[in-house]
Amino acid sequence: MQSPEHPFDRLQDRCRKLGSIVCAGFDPHPGDLPAAFRTDPPVTGVRRFLFAVLEALADVVPVIKPQIAFFEQLGADGIALYFELIREAHRENLLVIGDIKRSDIGSTAAAYAAAHLGPTDGSAADFVTLNPYLGLDGIAPFLEIGRKTGRGVFVLARTSNASAAELQDLVIDGVPLYERVGAAIEKWGSAWRGTHRFGDCGAVVGATHPEQLARLRAAFPSTFFLVPGFGAQGGTATDVVAAFRADDAGAVINSSRGILFAGKGRPDADARGVELARQAAIDMNREIAAALLRRKAARAGT
Amino acid sequence: MQSPEHPFDRLQDRCRKLGSIVCAGFDPHPGDLPAAFRTDPPVTGVRRFLFAVLEALADVVPVIKPQIAFFEQLGADGIALYFELIREAHRENLLVIGDIKRSDIGSTAAAYAAAHLGPTDGSAADFVTLNPYLGLDGIAPFLEIGRKTGRGVFVLARTSNASAAELQDLVIDGVPLYERVGAAIEKWGSAWRGTHRFGDCGAVVGATHPEQLARLRAAFPSTFFLVPGFGAQGGTATDVVAAFRADDAGAVINSSRGILFAGKGRPDADARGVELARQAAIDMNREIAAALLRRKAARAGT
Repeated sequence: MQSPEHPFDRLQDRCRKLGSIVCAGFDPHPGDLPAAFRTDPPVTGVRRFLFAVLEALADVVPVIKPQIAFFEQLGADGIALYFELIREAHRENLLVIGDIKRSDIGSTAAAYAAAHLGPTDGSAADFVTLNPYLGLDGIAPFLEIGRKTGRGVFVLARTSNASAAELQDLVIDGVPLYERVGAAIEKWGSAWRGTHRFGDCGAVVGATHPEQLARLRAAFPSTFFLVPGFGAQGGTATDVVAAFRADDAGAVINSSRGILFAGKGRPDADARGVELARQAAIDMNREIAAALLRRKAARAGT
Repeated sequence: MQSPEHPFDRLQDRCRKLGSIVCAGFDPHPGDLPAAFRTDPPVTGVRRFLFAVLEALADVVPVIKPQIAFFEQLGADGIALYFELIREAHRENLLVIGDIKRSDIGSTAAAYAAAHLGPTDGSAADFVTLNPYLGLDGIAPFLEIGRKTGRGVFVLARTSNASAAELQDLVIDGVPLYERVGAAIEKWGSAWRGTHRFGDCGAVVGATHPEQLARLRAAFPSTFFLVPGFGAQGGTATDVVAAFRADDAGAVINSSRGILFAGKGRPDADARGVELARQAAIDMNREIAAALLRRKAARAGT
């Protein structure tokens, strides 16, 4: 059997090809849709809106991140839409991070892995997000199926929310828990490295604490980062450059509401909401690219 | 508005009424079904089997715990079945712990809470399991909706799997992480106590380390415990008595495969699988009740 292409080679190469490191989060709060897409039942309008945005983004972002909670909230039809959206994204050559943050063990984790990385009809995500609280038992079943199918995972290390510190910043023998988790992630992914030297186990690291981002980036050069918290949550372009290696590889930066609902509150949201989402993704990418160039210039100057 | 009945009063009272502290885990691995229930697509047979077991258990267990991963694995039809099963359980006066172990924050956690504790057609679980890694932000949206609807949560403290120790047993200033989490759980649930003095935030504590169970029970008298790991995973009746307060309240003990697939490997599994599941639940409850009596006798004797 031929080895599949490494998932983080696929992601990094797609970033380079499009010249974009933006991950567009698809968090379809039904109440935030442009009025023209608010339907009863909501799933019909959500579908129309997401498919339109998907098409508009396909040549400007390498990857989307649907948040399954908003689909789960729509019941079984919402779950059907979640998988349909992934199939459609693949038709548009977009990669998909399924933001499922699942956490379970053994045969249960294997069932989740089969559900999300197993389908052979195009509806398997390329990556899923996972929670580390149960240790490697909760991660291994996903890596196992991913190593056969060319898919990977992102495990939560340091999240961007206010109460993240309650557990994640606790200090054990001088090392914060999130850094312990980072070390575990680097190790868990080490069995399969791609041409860009990343393992198949990425990390979720929030944009809201740039000093933590820098510390983890330096400590774990073989871990690809998914960085939430840009924009609405306070992370700036200057903050997020810390997520990238010196060769500007190794991270995608997520924005959800800032892209999907870029038209929110504007009188022309119905007519131009989709176009505004595309423009927001382009602008965000330019802003981060400029910050990366500034970093390079600053380094060359020293 | 009248306050709803406290969720852990409902659970404790149901345990007393039936004289049972068994939680029957519904983890429908399609491959483990009696042959007569293996269908293509699997969801049809899974449905028939689970509904039959549900009916057989209704007067011998207070609560069931469907594991959503096995339903998610069956796609959108599986999710529809998950919610249908909850409705049917409620018709049989069974309480339901939705084993979802979700972990997310803010509006995303609110979407999960709406999906699982929000439905008004009988398909809302009475409790869901949650992961603590993101702190209170990941729990609060569930407590908020639960305080309006009389529902509660169980948060993972110490799980029963082999790699649980990787994070959960790390020691911070002399206190293991799982005990820190236990303290957070006791605090998170303290805003709403029922007649039995339990808060509305329960804890998942595995049966496989009785000394941890005893330590947490002593430290957190107002936290109701959900105890997995009995039977197949190695926890015995003597191990699990540590989960109960001196008044024998405060815990339900889960068994999944040991009940649902009690007939597995037996030649009469097709004909008697459902009856064997019922008998397994009765036997398990008797065994634990006997161990509780032994504890009481030992205490009276000292």
